[in-house]
Amino acid sequence: MQKGLLILISGASGTGKGTVCKKFLSEMPETYYSISATTRQPREGETDGVEYFFITVEEFKKKIAEGKFLEYAEVYGNFYGTPLYKIEEHLNRGENVLLEIDTQGALNVMKKIPDGVYIFLLPPSLEELYNRIKNRGTESEEDLRRRLDSARQEIEVGKKYQYAVINDSVDLAVEKIKSIVAAESLKVERQLELFQNFFSKRGALRCQ
Amino acid sequence: MQKGLLILISGASGTGKGTVCKKFLSEMPETYYSISATTRQPREGETDGVEYFFITVEEFKKKIAEGKFLEYAEVYGNFYGTPLYKIEEHLNRGENVLLEIDTQGALNVMKKIPDGVYIFLLPPSLEELYNRIKNRGTESEEDLRRRLDSARQEIEVGKKYQYAVINDSVDLAVEKIKSIVAAESLKVERQLELFQNFFSKRGALRCQ
Repeated sequence: MQKGLLILISGASGTGKGTVCKKFLSEMPETYYSISATTRQPREGETDGVEYFFITVEEFKKKIAEGKFLEYAEVYGNFYGTPLYKIEEHLNRGENVLLEIDTQGALNVMKKIPDGVYIFLLPPSLEELYNRIKNRGTESEEDLRRRLDSARQEIEVGKKYQYAVINDSVDLAVEKIKSIVAAESLKVERQLELFQNFFSKRGALRCQ
Repeated sequence: MQKGLLILISGASGTGKGTVCKKFLSEMPETYYSISATTRQPREGETDGVEYFFITVEEFKKKIAEGKFLEYAEVYGNFYGTPLYKIEEHLNRGENVLLEIDTQGALNVMKKIPDGVYIFLLPPSLEELYNRIKNRGTESEEDLRRRLDSARQEIEVGKKYQYAVINDSVDLAVEKIKSIVAAESLKVERQLELFQNFFSKRGALRCQ
């Protein structure tokens, strides 16, 4: 069976990656969206395996030691991490896995999973990004500049991804990501089993 | 402007690559289908630039010397060749170029145009290929075996392509090829100009 694809989507803040990922998942519901693991207590209404995987500190530390997180962090005394073990479970079942992650995290993932599909979302332009952030009206001119500077740096990192998709329209961006996923599944290196099957004993016998 | 893609499609004989290419072109009419150049005289009804580019032996030999053919052959005293110069003209205009070529020719093209998109069409199975050829009813059992043997060898070469598409349905195969073409255009290495534009003076000024 063909292994699933790890699809990682990043983008500078304000690029709309959350909206794009949500729409992609609604159109490709067989995709597994990677859920973080945490050691904090579930809040009311939260379910294990929906918002988070809730595990104990001991379990979390054991998984760190075993290299079972793609990345993790400690925030206010609680651990949060992206569980590689869950991702691999789904990939091995032939399911695609979607991971929405910042550029810093993405560079680490690229090292650990070199055959992943790395997609960088771009705003139509820096001007457009400026306007989008400004129109929220929540930021001072100084904050705005700082955010744009960091967006510039993030976009520079975007060159290290395999694919760049401009999010000028959510529908179009999702269509493009679907094409990327379809094409990646058709790569020869991911389909070597298919070639082997052509030359299996059964196939050869039947053709003689 | 983004350069066009060279899309090369091969497949063992009997895989239906002619039908697939024709349908692809009808759905993507802006694609330039590479036409061969020849030194033979145009027959009645043939037009220069439609069936062939008709050129003189002198012109043909000059182009050989200048390395302007992806490949060429002499058949019954006439030259036939795949004109690299025409292909490059269209690629530089930002147009995609489709090339339907056998596996031997394809390996040569890969060396000359390493950033091309190489797609190998597969029959659903060797059995299916056997049946397709057999149902034509024109081949002896020995010819049939010979064709299957050569198909096996060609399929082995298929592993050197980037993408493998099973032609179980022409419509599905064309959809897959369209996804591959869309995805390839979104590769970061093909869009470096886009990244540069983000940091052009004009963009920077407007954002401050």
